[in-house]
Amino acid sequence: MSSRTLSVGVIGAGRIGRLHAENLAFQLPGVSVAAVADVRLAAAEEAASACPGARAVADPRAVLDDPRIDAVVISSSTDTHAALIEQAAAAGKHIFCEKPIDLDAGRVRGAIAACERAGVKLQVGFNRRFDPSFKRVADGVRRGEVGAPQLVRITSRDAQPPPLDYVKISGGLFLDMAIHDFDMARYLAQEEVVEVFATGSALIDPDIGAAGDVDTAVTLLRYRSGAIATIDNSRQAVYGYDQRVEVFGSRGCLTAGNSTPTQVSLWNESGQQHDRPLFFFLERYRDSYVAELRAFAQCIVDDTPPPVTGRDGLLAVNLALAAKRSLTQRRPIAVEDV
Amino acid sequence: MSSRTLSVGVIGAGRIGRLHAENLAFQLPGVSVAAVADVRLAAAEEAASACPGARAVADPRAVLDDPRIDAVVISSSTDTHAALIEQAAAAGKHIFCEKPIDLDAGRVRGAIAACERAGVKLQVGFNRRFDPSFKRVADGVRRGEVGAPQLVRITSRDAQPPPLDYVKISGGLFLDMAIHDFDMARYLAQEEVVEVFATGSALIDPDIGAAGDVDTAVTLLRYRSGAIATIDNSRQAVYGYDQRVEVFGSRGCLTAGNSTPTQVSLWNESGQQHDRPLFFFLERYRDSYVAELRAFAQCIVDDTPPPVTGRDGLLAVNLALAAKRSLTQRRPIAVEDV
Amino acid sequence: MSSRTLSVGVIGAGRIGRLHAENLAFQLPGVSVAAVADVRLAAAEEAASACPGARAVADPRAVLDDPRIDAVVISSSTDTHAALIEQAAAAGKHIFCEKPIDLDAGRVRGAIAACERAGVKLQVGFNRRFDPSFKRVADGVRRGEVGAPQLVRITSRDAQPPPLDYVKISGGLFLDMAIHDFDMARYLAQEEVVEVFATGSALIDPDIGAAGDVDTAVTLLRYRSGAIATIDNSRQAVYGYDQRVEVFGSRGCLTAGNSTPTQVSLWNESGQQHDRPLFFFLERYRDSYVAELRAFAQCIVDDTPPPVTGRDGLLAVNLALAAKRSLTQRRPIAVEDV
Amino acid sequence: MSSRTLSVGVIGAGRIGRLHAENLAFQLPGVSVAAVADVRLAAAEEAASACPGARAVADPRAVLDDPRIDAVVISSSTDTHAALIEQAAAAGKHIFCEKPIDLDAGRVRGAIAACERAGVKLQVGFNRRFDPSFKRVADGVRRGEVGAPQLVRITSRDAQPPPLDYVKISGGLFLDMAIHDFDMARYLAQEEVVEVFATGSALIDPDIGAAGDVDTAVTLLRYRSGAIATIDNSRQAVYGYDQRVEVFGSRGCLTAGNSTPTQVSLWNESGQQHDRPLFFFLERYRDSYVAELRAFAQCIVDDTPPPVTGRDGLLAVNLALAAKRSLTQRRPIAVEDV
Repeated sequence: MSSRTLSVGVIGAGRIGRLHAENLAFQLPGVSVAAVADVRLAAAEEAASACPGARAVADPRAVLDDPRIDAVVISSSTDTHAALIEQAAAAGKHIFCEKPIDLDAGRVRGAIAACERAGVKLQVGFNRRFDPSFKRVADGVRRGEVGAPQLVRITSRDAQPPPLDYVKISGGLFLDMAIHDFDMARYLAQEEVVEVFATGSALIDPDIGAAGDVDTAVTLLRYRSGAIATIDNSRQAVYGYDQRVEVFGSRGCLTAGNSTPTQVSLWNESGQQHDRPLFFFLERYRDSYVAELRAFAQCIVDDTPPPVTGRDGLLAVNLALAAKRSLTQRRPIAVEDV
Repeated sequence: MSSRTLSVGVIGAGRIGRLHAENLAFQLPGVSVAAVADVRLAAAEEAASACPGARAVADPRAVLDDPRIDAVVISSSTDTHAALIEQAAAAGKHIFCEKPIDLDAGRVRGAIAACERAGVKLQVGFNRRFDPSFKRVADGVRRGEVGAPQLVRITSRDAQPPPLDYVKISGGLFLDMAIHDFDMARYLAQEEVVEVFATGSALIDPDIGAAGDVDTAVTLLRYRSGAIATIDNSRQAVYGYDQRVEVFGSRGCLTAGNSTPTQVSLWNESGQQHDRPLFFFLERYRDSYVAELRAFAQCIVDDTPPPVTGRDGLLAVNLALAAKRSLTQRRPIAVEDV
Repeated sequence: MSSRTLSVGVIGAGRIGRLHAENLAFQLPGVSVAAVADVRLAAAEEAASACPGARAVADPRAVLDDPRIDAVVISSSTDTHAALIEQAAAAGKHIFCEKPIDLDAGRVRGAIAACERAGVKLQVGFNRRFDPSFKRVADGVRRGEVGAPQLVRITSRDAQPPPLDYVKISGGLFLDMAIHDFDMARYLAQEEVVEVFATGSALIDPDIGAAGDVDTAVTLLRYRSGAIATIDNSRQAVYGYDQRVEVFGSRGCLTAGNSTPTQVSLWNESGQQHDRPLFFFLERYRDSYVAELRAFAQCIVDDTPPPVTGRDGLLAVNLALAAKRSLTQRRPIAVEDV
Repeated sequence: MSSRTLSVGVIGAGRIGRLHAENLAFQLPGVSVAAVADVRLAAAEEAASACPGARAVADPRAVLDDPRIDAVVISSSTDTHAALIEQAAAAGKHIFCEKPIDLDAGRVRGAIAACERAGVKLQVGFNRRFDPSFKRVADGVRRGEVGAPQLVRITSRDAQPPPLDYVKISGGLFLDMAIHDFDMARYLAQEEVVEVFATGSALIDPDIGAAGDVDTAVTLLRYRSGAIATIDNSRQAVYGYDQRVEVFGSRGCLTAGNSTPTQVSLWNESGQQHDRPLFFFLERYRDSYVAELRAFAQCIVDDTPPPVTGRDGLLAVNLALAAKRSLTQRRPIAVEDV
């Protein structure tokens, strides 16, 4: 990165927003946080106080109107993303936006178009692409290590379900949780999905079922080539956050397992015990959150396309919407019909 | 087992028949092979010569009519199974029959009924239930180690595709190869499947596609409880025979990996290298082939029900037929409609 | 192996003798057990009854005098080995003898010389050389996979200590238990040891210390090339029989881990649990016991040198004696001084 | 940590000094770097420029005389450690000093005494105690997870040998490289070593042998209880930095393996390939370098004893000297004789 400091404003100081602010301030040489905005000013102040030189504001306009700010990180609630992207684009800021851009495909398209018109970069926060293990798998597929992909398998199980109140407004398991996995399916196989079939149940918490959602699901994707992906999702894996992928092809198979806090085993009369996987997504994906922002900063400095585009965000939403429809209609859904 | 010798006739002296004959003769104290029958007499003679005291015959009737023989192992071609079961039952022999009993559910039902009428035992050769790792998983599920099953995952990939001529008469991937996996899905979750959705492609060999079959498939099963199983099948895994299962439930997850010939790793500048999985099904399932016959002999001696019944054979065929129909009709199929 | 049957007499029908008899009778086509001898005739009868066509005798002379017997397996108590070898050699029988040949190096030399004079084969029962994992490591070293060996590490921990009465007459940990490991050190590095330093303690059972023995020991060996081996021994590993080796060299490292009964893991709130290693040496080394007898039979049929010679037996005893002296004298011992 | 900022001066801006400076500046909230000193002023300037608010000086006195500085990190060359400790103590600064304090035990004692007289804290840079895996093992031993320790095994192999010029002035393999392992042996077993026996060879580079040093060594330690430790050292493991420990005791065994960059395996016709271990010590021990400084800062803030004391530094040097003498004299050395 050039020695010039890139000045970033963070909009939304929730858990992820604070993480992004600290990563920008401490993990990325050449990047500084100029401001943190949150309608809850106290949250903005707390986040800003951890970043040398950052000020706290309640109104995101104060960030967008600041001519010294080069780029914004949007980590506010999903329903504000599309409008903030359009405003930031109009203000000439480069944009990193948390996933999903919006639950409505039309609004996603609008946000993308606004960035194209303004000539600003738009990167979507699919951080898992930057996980060292998953990136190693995708790079291997690209290099032909497994030949032509035939089967892709994505295991994505949360350690603990979110609060029921959150579930109700989340857009449902497919748009909220599996959206990462739909992107991963495209990223790993490096080809497009043409058909989606999903099935699911509320096995963990009947209240999730009563709220019209599922907590356990398997989605089956067909790629254009005839290759097939499966995604299995659960809202609760008691043994920890279970995040694995596997790409099987004509010449071999790349498989990425979970990470554990240590490499220690205890052997005793009961058997051989190992750590459970890293339990919390902020630990599991610690490096990926830094790496996605590093790539964002780099693409601004180098003036290259962002590694995860608005179109990637749109296509993941499309797959999630197809899965949702498949679950309701109990039949496979062609993606082009969504 | 009691000290009394159980006398067994083997019908069909192909690869599996010879294996059964040798296992009966050498691995099971208290069991002897009295005769081996095969329409190709030379094959019968070769198999019989390896078993002390066994005679070779061309006509299976010579086995069925021999009053000193207690039980038969039927390992002839699939199209002969149902008729041989009926004849053996009429002759009062206990029956161990290779899977599948028949590709037609009606004929399977007929064979089962014949055994019930005759009061003879009928065990179907789902040997994988006797694999130490898979049995350990099923036993753990039964003991509640994972709580209520929510997701079952079965990986079943052959190392090498069979000859195309065989593929054409095999009944297709679902009835020929995945039949074991359909049984495994019932065995692991210990509940019944109500709906099947399958998708597949011919990605390995276009001639398999031209013959109307697929070589790569994923089948999604819904159990009565709402739990879900996935089966992924491939006719060719270049890294070896890939046979894994996983049962994920409310209290944990049991997972069974592949076996390797040794426990050795080579660490060098290229990384850490391990053996590929046992390549050949006769090696991989060596212990299970002995154990299923031991259980068969034991159930005769103890006069208890066989551990794998004709009904198990029937239900696996039903699931395979449902998968086949789902593939053709591109929609989920209710098992009760098959 | 040729179709001609090799006729073997087993002398000594204890635990290992019975195992050898059954392996000869059932696992080795072309080999039969003609007789089993044991001074406790009931033990001989029990072992013989499991082998088709074998007779039981009390006096080993009945075996040695039987002209139809080609070879003997000597698995009687250690103090009888040397004399039986000399008698069997005089009777023109090929000989497989359990380790150690004798606790006295002079008597070992005498037994070897008797076999050489008689022109009969003498194989010593270092079965671990035939373990698939350890053989894979040794083969890899021979092929140069690790370059020049620099460090060899042998972990050899029993699951449970033998009875104290046995410990007292066993010759001590080095001659009784570590003798296998001394042979392994020579086998893996494929070069000779010139110096031995041993240290040990009675940490598990003070009565073992009171009996003048140790139950925990580390032995350090220097090879002629300057490469170094460590052997660590324990009479009690509560997590199971721990048998691992590692050869580290200029180009890499080969490492062999333990075997477990299954490939299953249970993941739950406590972590990830795996089986403990195979607990009992007869399970752990099941394949190796068959393979060493197969190799013995083969070297007779082919008239080639046995894969483990009397000299191998002698050199292992020498290393054990050097270790014993080092422990007492608390200094490194040159092997040529033993 | 209290909100008050702890002000630290770093003396010595080599590779480790720069790492410490950056960790203090960016990874430890509540800590700041006030100054970096190095006789090579350019090195000091480079390190200081990366730390907000730090100034660069050539003379360490400028650090020691600065009343606003609370503590110093000494990462200059080993021969300067003892004098700098004495000066820093006299100036009332708390001290974190890289290992070893000195190659001469008398000078180490002098430095420790100076800190005691001045009432300042002295922590020695045995960072490996703060590695999450090794700390987990030590904590488990302390909690009794393995019962009474009986065998400790430390594998410590560098990926690449240092330059020969460095080897010549390093004090030799035991004082330079194995010093960490001697500390680890005390840390893991939590008891003192009474006797040392070492053997070694120059197998990797004959020039190392010509320089009077070894590049391959095994050291055997006896603890007061009779428990035994082995340390195996190599200057070159071509497969990467190999850092493993194992503590075997009466109730079980704790074992810590290597870390790899990813959790990915590639399965293909050649077998199953995994990453080699993290190759470079700065990567392998990244977290431990942060954690040791966090603990140092914490013990100052809390006014508690440092987790690694000057005495720990002294005892590790004693063990290294005993090993060196044992290698020369070819006999076990009592630690109290050093």
